[in-house]
This record gives sequence, C-alpha cells and structure tokens, in this order.
Amino acid sequence: MTDEKKSPPLSFCEGARAVPVRGVRAGERFEVQDWVADEVPVALEYNGISHAVMLATPLDLEDFALGFSLSEGILDAADQLYGVEEEASELGITLHLRVAAEAFARLKERRRSMTGRTGCGLCGTESLAHVARNLPVLADGMPFRREAISRAMSQFVSLQTLQQATGAVHAAAWCSAEGEVKWLREDVGRHNALDKLVGALARNGVEAATGFIAVTSRASFEMVQKTAAAGVSLLAAVSAPTSFAVTTAERARMTLVGFARKQDLVVYSQAQRLILDAAPENTHAH
Amino acid sequence: MTDEKKSPPLSFCEGARAVPVRGVRAGERFEVQDWVADEVPVALEYNGISHAVMLATPLDLEDFALGFSLSEGILDAADQLYGVEEEASELGITLHLRVAAEAFARLKERRRSMTGRTGCGLCGTESLAHVARNLPVLADGMPFRREAISRAMSQFVSLQTLQQATGAVHAAAWCSAEGEVKWLREDVGRHNALDKLVGALARNGVEAATGFIAVTSRASFEMVQKTAAAGVSLLAAVSAPTSFAVTTAERARMTLVGFARKQDLVVYSQAQRLILDAAPENTHAH
Repeated sequence: MTDEKKSPPLSFCEGARAVPVRGVRAGERFEVQDWVADEVPVALEYNGISHAVMLATPLDLEDFALGFSLSEGILDAADQLYGVEEEASELGITLHLRVAAEAFARLKERRRSMTGRTGCGLCGTESLAHVARNLPVLADGMPFRREAISRAMSQFVSLQTLQQATGAVHAAAWCSAEGEVKWLREDVGRHNALDKLVGALARNGVEAATGFIAVTSRASFEMVQKTAAAGVSLLAAVSAPTSFAVTTAERARMTLVGFARKQDLVVYSQAQRLILDAAPENTHAH
Repeated sequence: MTDEKKSPPLSFCEGARAVPVRGVRAGERFEVQDWVADEVPVALEYNGISHAVMLATPLDLEDFALGFSLSEGILDAADQLYGVEEEASELGITLHLRVAAEAFARLKERRRSMTGRTGCGLCGTESLAHVARNLPVLADGMPFRREAISRAMSQFVSLQTLQQATGAVHAAAWCSAEGEVKWLREDVGRHNALDKLVGALARNGVEAATGFIAVTSRASFEMVQKTAAAGVSLLAAVSAPTSFAVTTAERARMTLVGFARKQDLVVYSQAQRLILDAAPENTHAH
C-alpha cells in the first residue's frame, strides 16, 4: 500500500487484521484488503485490583505484564510475578497478575496515598514532584562502538514483521555489544514495545547491562526512564530525542543516541561511552 | 542534521532548545549545537485540585488546557473555562484552570467514583467498560474531495516550524473543505497536538464541522475519539491507522483516511464522504 510496508498476500498476520479499503495510488483507484495493526484496550489487574488500562497490540502480553510492572516500579524483580492470566472479552483483554505480597502491599500503599486522584498521561502521576522518580545512575562499563549501532539498525527492518504488514507499529530491540539484535518486540505504542522488551529480557534472564536498546521511534523522557530502569546504559533511537530525554539521560549517566540511521548518528549525552571512530580494518596498515 | 529537519543557524526557536551534540554523518565526524524539542511535565489543576500530568511542549498551553478539557469531557463548552494561569517551576508547569461550578461538580463526582484507583494510559480510565465512552455519531453533511486532502498535505510541511528545527514533533491541523490549512498546532505528543488544535478551534469560535483534521502521525483510537468529540467528520493521517481506530471511526460514522501523501491516500471507513475521482478540469471537454 505504501513505501513503508510491503503488502504481501498474507492469509494471516498475528497482531493485525485485514480490512477492506479503497484509495488512490499514483492516480489509479483501487479496492483491496489491507492489514491494520491490532490495538486493544488491555487492563492490568494486580491480585484482583484494577490498576490501569493501556491501548496495546495483543502480542507478547506476558512480557508486557512483567515489563510494565518493572518499568513502573510495581515489581522489583521478575520472581515477584507468580503468574499472569489473560481474559478476553468484547471490550478488550484483562491481564490478571498474581504478585508477591510485599509488592502488592507497596502498590496498595501507593494507591491509598493517591485517593481521589487520577493519574493520567504519566502513569499514576498526580503531581510534578512525582515525575522523575527513582531514576538510577548507570555504571560506566565498557564503551560501545558506533559500528555496533549501525549493525543493529541494518538488522532492524527485516525483523519487524508486524510493521512490514501494517506500517503502524514501533519496535524496541535489545542488542548485544556487537550490535546483534537478540530480542525484539513490536506494539502500536512505542512505550508498550519497550515495556514488552524489558519484560522479555527479565523473563529470559538476559544480562541487559551488557548490551544496548534500539528503538524505531523518537526518544522521549519516558523511553529514557524505562531504559534506565532496565539497567541499560545506551539508548539508540531512529528519530529525535526531546529536551527532557536529554537532561534525564544526563542525570542517569545514559548515552542517548538519536537519528541512528545506516552509518550516521548523533550523540546527545554521555558521549564518552560511544567510540565514534571506525575500527581500523587492518591495524598494521595504519 | 538529518533529512527530516533543516538546521538553519537559528538564534532562537520557540519550543526548542539548543544542546551540544557530536556525531557522524556521511563518514565525517562533527560537533555542533542541535535543536531539540522541549518536553516538559505539565500538570492540570481544576479549581485547585490536581487532575493529571502530561508531558508536552510548552507552546499554546491555553489551547491545550481547553482542548484537553473538552476532549476528556471535563468541559462541555469553551465558556465553562473562566481562566487559565500558568505557573512555572523547576519541576515543570502547572496550569491552574478555573472552571464553571457544574463542570467542577461533575469532575469531583467522577473522581470520587474512582477513589483508590489510578487511571493510566487512557486518561482516568480504570476499567475496560469506560474506554469507549461518549462517542458521538457524526452527521452526514457535504462530502469532501480528495484534492482538498492533497492540498492540505502539501501545505503541512512548511507550516511545521518546530518540526523543521527539531525533527521531533507532531502536528495537527484543521483545514477548510477546500484543503486550506487554517489552524495548526505542534507538540512532542500527537495527542497533545490534537488537543491543542481542538482548544484553538473552540477558543476562536471555528465551526469545526465544516472542515477536516489532518495529522502528521498515525491514527490511533484516541485520535479518532478526540476528532469525533470535536464534531469533525474526516480525519486524514500521514501514516497508518490501527484496527481500533478503524472500528471506532465506523461507529462514529467518521471517514478515516490513512497514508495521505501527495496525491495518494487510503480510505478505511465511511468512504461515501470522500469523492476520490479528480474533479474534471474542464467539464465541457469530458
């Protein structure tokens, strides 16, 4: 349908549905079936108590449940999540999470202090003072190389199966220090894609700090915050960062890379963690 | 810095700030000042009661205050908003809204029923049953012409001043039936850009139903819902819609257009409201 997506004659695409469309392309009218990405209200319920409703793509929902809980500081570790049950209805999907008693007690306490208030936009945030909560400061560690980011970006497109069908979803990927894309998750929401990725890493015992995270979207404050909470010290975005993303990355001592495309990139913070010069192909020749 | 944005040697850009960056482009290293879009926590307070914190670009905040309040159904009409005061602090910006007694009473009632719950993701939504609230059904009215959408899209880019400087923001525009962009608002968040536009239309007494809305982003459920709440019967997005956007548009009897670029477009719902065939240049010759 467009330059963004291939429209192969799929008979089934997980996370998408076919709808009849009509339109005009290059002056010609057409009527076809087109794939659109699924967007579904997903309610998160902790030990029987409703907490939030997100609009998300109904794929990898166990990863989403865990990643959201970790990103939001509801859980400290994966083993505090005892189980997730999905319940689908006409209205959407409810994720019933069973969580450890200490995490649940803390959540109830947090909610009690918000009585009569509804957080919005920022999850459960009712005042400015709560915005920049719990930002970790990342360790120095080994620097990354620019080539690793280029390599990850070149692998990205072919791994985004839902994006290829629909042109409507974002992806977040965890990449090894060498730039191999090891884990990738997609969602109509870029924050959800990152939460799903964080959940996948935690569920699979990945040492997240040894690699970096790449995202197809822009880098906002919340993307930086979630990446920092996952203990990852470099975030590379295909598009631009915001000012708050840059200052938050500085505070967390995170290296924030924007406009990462092919060989190009721009570093917005903590540049010492990224080696920009290309590795010499043959050290003897230099 | 990139193909998405011009980087003119601006000395000042409203809604953006200059940050020192380094990077690599076409194999060459550089160190320059780059413009990044401002993203600031904005708290909305109604008659002294905190309601929500959004991350937004601090431009057109009076439009945002009104548009958000109308989109969320907190206010029924612009004249229920008596005034907005901006208070800036280190942590962000608080918008103090003074609203009519009946609107405030309803808000308090809504909040009381949510005691102990924090809505999240979807504004103040704590259960699936509340997601698809208050969706109006749009009147039929005069159909629009495809050329009008093409015309609006061709005007869009040059009017996005913040996007040109930063490459990081979305725009929402209200266009006349002929495709003239009359009102345009920008923000790091696409929902905020649309709320700002809705506020601008209401503040300026624009008969929104006589034109259509064009957005630079994808079309999600919430974009369709906000457009319907504004009484606008056609939404044209540069990128793809989601499945929930399509079904919601059908329910609201809204014409949803995706991938609107140059002369091309795809119609996802209520196609009868859009005349796809080009107008004959000379009726006598046909």
